Amino acid sequence: MNEVAPIIAALERSVTVLVSVHKSPDGDALGSQLALVLALEKKGKKVIAQNLDPVPEIYRFLPGSERIKVGRALSGRFDAIVVLDADPPRTGLFDGGVPADMLINIDHHVTNPRQWPLTWLDADAAATGEMIHELIRQLNVPINPEIALCLYTSIFTDTGSFRYANTTARSMRIAADMIDAGADPWLVTENVYESFAYRRLKLLGNVLAGIEKSEDGRVAWVVVTEELFRQNGATPEDTDNFVNFVRSTKGVEVAVLFRQTADRQYKISLRSKGRIDLAGLAQSLGGGGHKNAAGSTLDGTLGEVKKRVLGAVTEAIAAQLGTGQTAGHGRRP
Amino acid sequence: MNEVAPIIAALERSVTVLVSVHKSPDGDALGSQLALVLALEKKGKKVIAQNLDPVPEIYRFLPGSERIKVGRALSGRFDAIVVLDADPPRTGLFDGGVPADMLINIDHHVTNPRQWPLTWLDADAAATGEMIHELIRQLNVPINPEIALCLYTSIFTDTGSFRYANTTARSMRIAADMIDAGADPWLVTENVYESFAYRRLKLLGNVLAGIEKSEDGRVAWVVVTEELFRQNGATPEDTDNFVNFVRSTKGVEVAVLFRQTADRQYKISLRSKGRIDLAGLAQSLGGGGHKNAAGSTLDGTLGEVKKRVLGAVTEAIAAQLGTGQTAGHGRRP
Repeated sequence: MNEVAPIIAALERSVTVLVSVHKSPDGDALGSQLALVLALEKKGKKVIAQNLDPVPEIYRFLPGSERIKVGRALSGRFDAIVVLDADPPRTGLFDGGVPADMLINIDHHVTNPRQWPLTWLDADAAATGEMIHELIRQLNVPINPEIALCLYTSIFTDTGSFRYANTTARSMRIAADMIDAGADPWLVTENVYESFAYRRLKLLGNVLAGIEKSEDGRVAWVVVTEELFRQNGATPEDTDNFVNFVRSTKGVEVAVLFRQTADRQYKISLRSKGRIDLAGLAQSLGGGGHKNAAGSTLDGTLGEVKKRVLGAVTEAIAAQLGTGQTAGHGRRP
Repeated sequence: MNEVAPIIAALERSVTVLVSVHKSPDGDALGSQLALVLALEKKGKKVIAQNLDPVPEIYRFLPGSERIKVGRALSGRFDAIVVLDADPPRTGLFDGGVPADMLINIDHHVTNPRQWPLTWLDADAAATGEMIHELIRQLNVPINPEIALCLYTSIFTDTGSFRYANTTARSMRIAADMIDAGADPWLVTENVYESFAYRRLKLLGNVLAGIEKSEDGRVAWVVVTEELFRQNGATPEDTDNFVNFVRSTKGVEVAVLFRQTADRQYKISLRSKGRIDLAGLAQSLGGGGHKNAAGSTLDGTLGEVKKRVLGAVTEAIAAQLGTGQTAGHGRRP
C-alpha cells in the first residue's frame, strides 16, 4: 500500500477538495465518490462533488447524491482534485488539460494508463469502493451508516450483485462489514434492480421476443430498431444491460445487440462469456473495448451490418475455440 | 445452539444415514444436502441421498449431484434420516408416516411446525446452507473445495445472489470463507444465472411484451397462455421466476402472473415488494403462501379470473396502503 500514504498526506494537507468520476457514472463511481465526500467532510475538509453527467435515477437514493454538481465548468479553487474509477480525462471536466500537480487518481481498471504522479491503481479490487474503504480506514474516519450504504452500493453494483467473476472473498467481507455498519441490502436491491421503468420492461419483452441464434448456438443476437423505441415510448438508455440477457442463453459464447442510431447506422454491443476475447474483434469493426465487453458503430442497412458483425464473430469463435461445440467458463462482462 | 448438540450426537452414533430434501429441490436444498453428504462421508458414514424429484439441470454442476437417488421408494435400513430445508412430509418420501424416532430435521423456514424431537430451526439463517456450515464445523470436518462449492451455492441462490432482504452479514462472511476454501463464484453464476434455455428467453420476451398495469401503477401483470407455450416450444417450468421481472417494475407493489393450466383454468402467482401482505389475499382466492409470495389456481375464462384476482389485489392494496401513491420498501420474495 505504498501508493496510499502519499495520497493520505496530500488529502490531509488540503483544505478544499474536488471529487469527480467518469462520464455516465455507475454505482461504483457514485458510491465511491459520495463515501469519500462524506469521509473528507468528517475530517473538516470543504468538499465539492462534480461530474459531467447527472446521477441516474436508480442511484438517487445514495446519501448526498443531490449535492453532486453537474456540468463541465469548474468554479472555485481546489487544493486537491480526486478522480475516482477512471483515468482523469474520462471525467470530461479537464478540457484545458488535467491539473496534474493537484491530482489524485484512484482506480481499479487495469486499462488505466497510470500517467499521473499520485495514481493508486488496484486491479485486484472488484470495485473502486473497496479501495475507498481502505482509504477511509487509513484516514481514521469511522464508517457511519451513510458511508456504509455508499460503499456497499459500490461493491454490490460492480460485482453484479456478487455474480461476476471479479467477486472475491475480500469484496464479500467488506460488504458484510458495511451491513454491520448500517447498510440495508434490500434498499440497494430495490433501487438498483427493482425499479425498472415500465416502458423498459415492455421494450425488453419486444426485443427478447425477436432473439435469434446461430445454427451452432454459440452466437445469439437481438435488434432494437427506432420503430421499437417509438412503439414503446422508450429511449436508448432503456436498452442498458439488454445484451446481458442475450448472453445468459445456455451455450452462447458471444451475444450481440444491434441498436439503430440512424436510418443506416447501428451501434453494436458485444458480450462474451469469457472464452472469446472481443477486444481485437471490436477493433477490426472500427470499435474498441475489453475482453468480455466491446462495441462499435457501423454504417449500413441492418442486413449489411448483421452480415458483417455476425461473420466476424463466427470467425473469431472458430479461430479461438475451433469449430467444435464447447461449454464456456466465463468471466465478468 | 442447544438444538445442535443432540443432532451431532445422533449423527456420531449412526452408521447409515439418509439425507433428503423437499420436492422440487432448489439450490439451497441441494447445496445443503450434498455438503452434508460429503461431510458425513468424511466421518466414515455410509450416506444415501434421495429425493422425490430429480436435480434440475442448472444444479447438476454440484459435486455429487449425480448420486442423488430419485423416487418415492426408500430401500435399505437407516440409523438416521436427515431432512433438510423443509418439514419432513414435504419430501414426499414418507407415505407410511414419518419415522420420527430416527428423524433429524434442519430448516430455516419460520413456517416449519417443529413437530419432531430432533428439530433444529433457525429462522434467522438466510439459507439452510448456513446451518449446515455450522453443523459441519461442529462435526469437525474440514471444508474442502467441493463442500465449499455446495454451501456457497446454497447461500448464493437462497439470497437471490445476495439481493433479497434476508441477506445478512453472516451470509456474506460464510460465502467469503467458502470462496477462500475453493468455491468459484463465477462457476455458480454461470450455471444458475447464465444458462437460460433459448426457448425460455424467447418465451420471456413474448410474455413481457404483453405486460399490463393498473391505472395507479401499483399492480402489474402478465399472462402465459397454452398458445404461447406451443409457439415457443416451452413448458410451465420455463416460466419460473417470470413474475419477479414483473415485480421489478418501478412503483409496482404487487405483481401477478396468470398461467393457463387448462381450457378454463389459470394458476396465479403473486409477488409483493413487501408492503402488501399476500397470505390472506391468496387464502381468499382459495390458495396460500407467504407474505411476499403466494398463489392459487382458479377456474374460469381469462377475463373472469383476471377480474376476480385484480379486484382482490386492488382491494388488498387499498386496505393495507390506502389509495394514495406510495413507494415500497420491499422484502424478500
